[in-house]
Amino acid sequence: MAEAEGVSSATPTEEMNGAGNLMDFLDEPIPDVGTYEDFHTIDWLREKSRDTDRHRKITHRSKESIWEFVKSLLDAWSGWVVMLLIGLLSGTLAGVIDLAVDWMTDLKEGVCLSAFWYSHEQCCWTSNETTFADRDKCPQWQKWAELMTGYNEGAGAYLLNYFLYVMWALFFSFLAVSLVRVFAPYACGSGIPEIKTILSGFIIRGYLGKWTLLIKTVTLVLAVSSGLSLGKEGPLVHVACCCGNLFCSLFSKYSKNEGKRREVLSAAAAAGVSVAFGAPIGGVLFSLEEVSYYFPLKTLWRSFFAALVAAFTLRSINPFGNNRLVLFYVEYHTPWYMAELVPFILLGVFGGLWGTLFIRGNIAWCRRRKTTQLGKYPVLEVIAVTGITAILAFPNPYTRRSTSELISELFNDCGALESSQLCDYINNPNMSRPEDDIPDRPAGPGVYMALWQLALALIFKIVITIFTFGMKIPSGLFIPSMAVGAIAGRIVGIAVEQMAYHHHDWIIFKNWCRPGADCVTPGLYAMVGAAACLGGVTRMTVSLVVIMFELTGGLEYIVPLMAAAVTSKWVADAFGKEGIYEAHIRLNGYPYLDQDEFTHRTLATDVMRPRRNEPPLSVLTQDSTTVEDVEMLIKETDYNGFPVVMSRESERLIGFVQRRDLILAIKTARQKQDGVVSNSVVYFTEDAPQIPASNPQPLKLRRILNLSPFTVTDHTPMETVVDIFRKLGLRQCLVTRSGRLLGIITKKDVLRHMAQMMNQDPESIMFN
Amino acid sequence: MAEAEGVSSATPTEEMNGAGNLMDFLDEPIPDVGTYEDFHTIDWLREKSRDTDRHRKITHRSKESIWEFVKSLLDAWSGWVVMLLIGLLSGTLAGVIDLAVDWMTDLKEGVCLSAFWYSHEQCCWTSNETTFADRDKCPQWQKWAELMTGYNEGAGAYLLNYFLYVMWALFFSFLAVSLVRVFAPYACGSGIPEIKTILSGFIIRGYLGKWTLLIKTVTLVLAVSSGLSLGKEGPLVHVACCCGNLFCSLFSKYSKNEGKRREVLSAAAAAGVSVAFGAPIGGVLFSLEEVSYYFPLKTLWRSFFAALVAAFTLRSINPFGNNRLVLFYVEYHTPWYMAELVPFILLGVFGGLWGTLFIRGNIAWCRRRKTTQLGKYPVLEVIAVTGITAILAFPNPYTRRSTSELISELFNDCGALESSQLCDYINNPNMSRPEDDIPDRPAGPGVYMALWQLALALIFKIVITIFTFGMKIPSGLFIPSMAVGAIAGRIVGIAVEQMAYHHHDWIIFKNWCRPGADCVTPGLYAMVGAAACLGGVTRMTVSLVVIMFELTGGLEYIVPLMAAAVTSKWVADAFGKEGIYEAHIRLNGYPYLDQDEFTHRTLATDVMRPRRNEPPLSVLTQDSTTVEDVEMLIKETDYNGFPVVMSRESERLIGFVQRRDLILAIKTARQKQDGVVSNSVVYFTEDAPQIPASNPQPLKLRRILNLSPFTVTDHTPMETVVDIFRKLGLRQCLVTRSGRLLGIITKKDVLRHMAQMMNQDPESIMFN
Repeated sequence: MAEAEGVSSATPTEEMNGAGNLMDFLDEPIPDVGTYEDFHTIDWLREKSRDTDRHRKITHRSKESIWEFVKSLLDAWSGWVVMLLIGLLSGTLAGVIDLAVDWMTDLKEGVCLSAFWYSHEQCCWTSNETTFADRDKCPQWQKWAELMTGYNEGAGAYLLNYFLYVMWALFFSFLAVSLVRVFAPYACGSGIPEIKTILSGFIIRGYLGKWTLLIKTVTLVLAVSSGLSLGKEGPLVHVACCCGNLFCSLFSKYSKNEGKRREVLSAAAAAGVSVAFGAPIGGVLFSLEEVSYYFPLKTLWRSFFAALVAAFTLRSINPFGNNRLVLFYVEYHTPWYMAELVPFILLGVFGGLWGTLFIRGNIAWCRRRKTTQLGKYPVLEVIAVTGITAILAFPNPYTRRSTSELISELFNDCGALESSQLCDYINNPNMSRPEDDIPDRPAGPGVYMALWQLALALIFKIVITIFTFGMKIPSGLFIPSMAVGAIAGRIVGIAVEQMAYHHHDWIIFKNWCRPGADCVTPGLYAMVGAAACLGGVTRMTVSLVVIMFELTGGLEYIVPLMAAAVTSKWVADAFGKEGIYEAHIRLNGYPYLDQDEFTHRTLATDVMRPRRNEPPLSVLTQDSTTVEDVEMLIKETDYNGFPVVMSRESERLIGFVQRRDLILAIKTARQKQDGVVSNSVVYFTEDAPQIPASNPQPLKLRRILNLSPFTVTDHTPMETVVDIFRKLGLRQCLVTRSGRLLGIITKKDVLRHMAQMMNQDPESIMFN
Repeated sequence: MAEAEGVSSATPTEEMNGAGNLMDFLDEPIPDVGTYEDFHTIDWLREKSRDTDRHRKITHRSKESIWEFVKSLLDAWSGWVVMLLIGLLSGTLAGVIDLAVDWMTDLKEGVCLSAFWYSHEQCCWTSNETTFADRDKCPQWQKWAELMTGYNEGAGAYLLNYFLYVMWALFFSFLAVSLVRVFAPYACGSGIPEIKTILSGFIIRGYLGKWTLLIKTVTLVLAVSSGLSLGKEGPLVHVACCCGNLFCSLFSKYSKNEGKRREVLSAAAAAGVSVAFGAPIGGVLFSLEEVSYYFPLKTLWRSFFAALVAAFTLRSINPFGNNRLVLFYVEYHTPWYMAELVPFILLGVFGGLWGTLFIRGNIAWCRRRKTTQLGKYPVLEVIAVTGITAILAFPNPYTRRSTSELISELFNDCGALESSQLCDYINNPNMSRPEDDIPDRPAGPGVYMALWQLALALIFKIVITIFTFGMKIPSGLFIPSMAVGAIAGRIVGIAVEQMAYHHHDWIIFKNWCRPGADCVTPGLYAMVGAAACLGGVTRMTVSLVVIMFELTGGLEYIVPLMAAAVTSKWVADAFGKEGIYEAHIRLNGYPYLDQDEFTHRTLATDVMRPRRNEPPLSVLTQDSTTVEDVEMLIKETDYNGFPVVMSRESERLIGFVQRRDLILAIKTARQKQDGVVSNSVVYFTEDAPQIPASNPQPLKLRRILNLSPFTVTDHTPMETVVDIFRKLGLRQCLVTRSGRLLGIITKKDVLRHMAQMMNQDPESIMFN
């Protein structure tokens, strides 16, 4: 250990005053030094350093007594405990939400007489009818008109049902938007753009708070039940992250370290997607690919654990009543054929176009909401959109029901017992009908009817979703996007199927579609379409395919899904690189440094402050600034911190001091330390001169000085600087040339420069 | 664009001489500047910078003409093309290897008379016998003794078969080790430790060369066929990476940039695992979790593509003849019960212990091989181990066959048609026997016999695998590890099953194991055991569970697998943090900076060179060093580069110049530039003074000077320095205090310091 001895001559204070170990070795700790203000960026390096110190201290102490050893074990296990708790709570919440949504969605149409808290399906479970269609009409379940007037048929009953359907919808959405407005404004939207920003190292206090958790859970049920074109998947990620944040506060390891907290939140996001789709692996990959910023391997493993616990908790609640983990369980019995790749790729193109249309339309509408009078009446807006949705949705059976039921039906293959209109094929009585392998048949009138209704539903969903996403209620866009894709896919699928049936002598069908064979699965087309549309909107890739793979459970269909997902991504990327979440991050001006490569040829000197013609950098000197000067500087500027130099002449950099720490230190010194007055000199050096007690006493502040500030030279290319900011999670970086301080680059400067290089509006970045 | 204008007064040369854009803007490019020597570390930042420059140039040119635009499109697509090619080739090679191994493994026992290139199974496919047992004895397939003497029974035939089995094994392994020794020494071992090192940014020329690819493929077949206790999974990753490297050379984008090349190699590793197990998602996660160092999201998506293409290529070759993608296809029909978690966790403990034993034993043996006479006779060693293996393996039916067949049988549930000895249960004739759901039955004599044989096989495998891994032939350890776990698991499974059958009135069985029910699946225990043992050895976690999940295709069994994997990792970690690959990396002294946190409280000043009492740092001055001085410095030292300072007095840092670039630049200048002689002054400044033509002309070298070397202050904690080295992939970092150059820290210094802090042997690090 020759090196460790090498520094023994240095004073202990100096040895201990590295960048990170600021908190622990103060003679007298200053409260709150090292914390962050709201809407500020965290310094990842510092957080990491602090955690290492904490860990070192615990390891050191654990050798002292058995109790400390047990405490150190508890500390090491706390990560797993948090994961377990997150999994349990988010699984439970997801189950409760599913049950409540089921019940309230059906409440819009009718009520269960045997027990009013049963949904339609639960109400009719015990019924004795044999077919699905009959069971749907079990006597225990009564529509509102029947209950009130005794009639279930006729125009009057229809209109009464229609009216009550709209009323319930309006009531639910009004309640939702009011709760959000009054109690938790952060509960609106999908939450994923904000979570991405938070995970990248930004502080938004209260965004993941207990209040938000409660209100988001309740209003999510209301919003989904109101029949609006929105899903619960994105909000569930937000809910899971709130759970993560909640459990972080149980352990000081996580609650006091913003970096560690973000590891927990990444895992919570995985648990959220896991319960949203019942796809734990997909959830982990979603967190990795889409949401997280800093994802060490330890987090990967823990995320997986949390995702699994959540999925199994949800399954033991069993809200879908089918003992399945996944939201849309499908099983296909027919392989796909090479020629089918053509429609699959066409669906991919459709998905990409839908993604582009949706992002552009939605962002334009949201911008209008932000900038015009429209934004001032969020309740009215929600009421209006709900009204329009409910009025247009009721007449069409495919839009009247909940969107997830719709997707589920569209994904399903037509089995022998299927009573859906979509499965109204003309049966050939001569054909033997094995259970699983029903040959292609000509479409009956029900199918043609369904096609028309689906086409109308498609247009309706496309338009209304653009206006729905971004309103002041919880709203996810996975389900609406998937619905658009599933409708389009099913239409294409039926078209291909009928073409193959009627023209099985055509060259393209000849090889794979003999008459009487089951060669096209329209449900698979729906699934491929859903993947394509979801991919176009979110630009997810691997996680998307894995989620879909987990839904079907077979590797067989990965190639169609992947072909569609790739095509959709390429088509959508051709019109603009941003996914919907990045677009919303930019719209809201969050300081998010995305993973795209920065390819412009600028240097650090072009970005740093001060620019030419600007006043010089506000710096402190190590031994000639008075308390008064410092206070003046703090008052006059709003910088986050100040470089400390040897002297104004030499401009040689000594260190960097945070504004917040400086304010706190001076305040504490003025209160507690005798002799510190306005004209005391502030010393950042190792030793302050001895001054007679009558004179103003010096204020020694070396302990709050960061002696290892990050520096780059003025010649460093900006791509390297961006890389450093991104990978190390810096807050700011000093620019030097041959040791002389030239300027400073903050994360804000980097973001502004990147926006400028992309010809965007650089002033919209909300940041400190 | 105010900033861009801000630097317009600087000379164009200066503006262009950032860290990375070294290659492209030289007046006269110096050949090989910017490349690396063998066994050197790459500078990730520089590689990234160079790629950005290249990309910028192509984007710029693409606006000039249609041809250039097409070229830019081709460039953008080349990544996908490379992935496609890697997938196709590695899938094909895996298929060929599988077929060849099948044939040659059977060749040890006999030959197919109808066509000698058929394996036993292929030979008897067309046979008419109905049961599996009879079909195994089809007349077309003859054992060697039968073919030679006409007798198939009796001691003589047995001994002849025994003798020939051993002879074939010796022949195969001799051929394998000779080929490796003579043609491609890098083809030995599993290759994963080296690939990890290469991916972390180290150059080992030829390790991924064409010759290695060819020899590794051939010798892998020989080694596996010889019946040694080794698998083909690790080597397949090496083979896939060789394919990746091969296709890199087709595109200058990848062949000329070591950073981009490593992106391709990461994807190739995923393709390798994908074909090894038929698990594409698991392959990608394996590459992410275990192998790769730098894994951007773009790589994730491309890896997935390569893994899928590889898997589907393999499936279309269909080497297992079952149209399945996965190596061990299993389907279980019984759910598992909570109480079974106890044996599963016990299997996890066993896996952890096995991992510890294997790693310690194997490393001790490999160290002995390296340090004693043993290492000088690799051929003899292989022959001896093969001899012992073959002699001990033949008498036991479970070790005689290939290890993958053994695992496959152990994983399988006993179906109604199973003829294996392991399924020799006593049937109750009164019981109805549905196809899939066979109730628990008492074990017959065959099962007890099998248990004894399995126990012997377990001990044999445990011992022999420790000595086999690390010999000079291609050898993977996935399969042997899984075999150990599968044997142990199956034994435990049968024990639990029999206990449940005979004691179904015990409290623990009462609730879930009624008589006549099928409540324990011994095959599942085998699978859980295999996962536990593999986890103990490699410390894989998520990828392991996902691979196993892809084998079974059902989320049902994730909890048992995960419980076992977690337990195994915890148990093994308690005895030592390193997995087998890290242990081998350390044994071989590769400069691999692993992802573990560095938690010691040392500062940069403790690690930097020069130490106290050491001569000062070798530096160049910006305008007072002569060519002769430089040449002297190059001769006397072997540093990789030299800092350039303003003057020796001020020690203010200007930049950093690479040794290799310096040598090349001086050599080129001496050859081509008039007036450059030994006492010419080397200028690193922007302008060199005008000197009369008669005097020695100055040599201007600013163009090879890196003006933005990475610096930290002497007070920077080492944990931050380690983080910076790891995340930014630095080669070296300069240490300054208030702008004055104090020293330098290289990756070697960091590794040595880390080793020192862990009380390891710091001198074993092979590094330049």
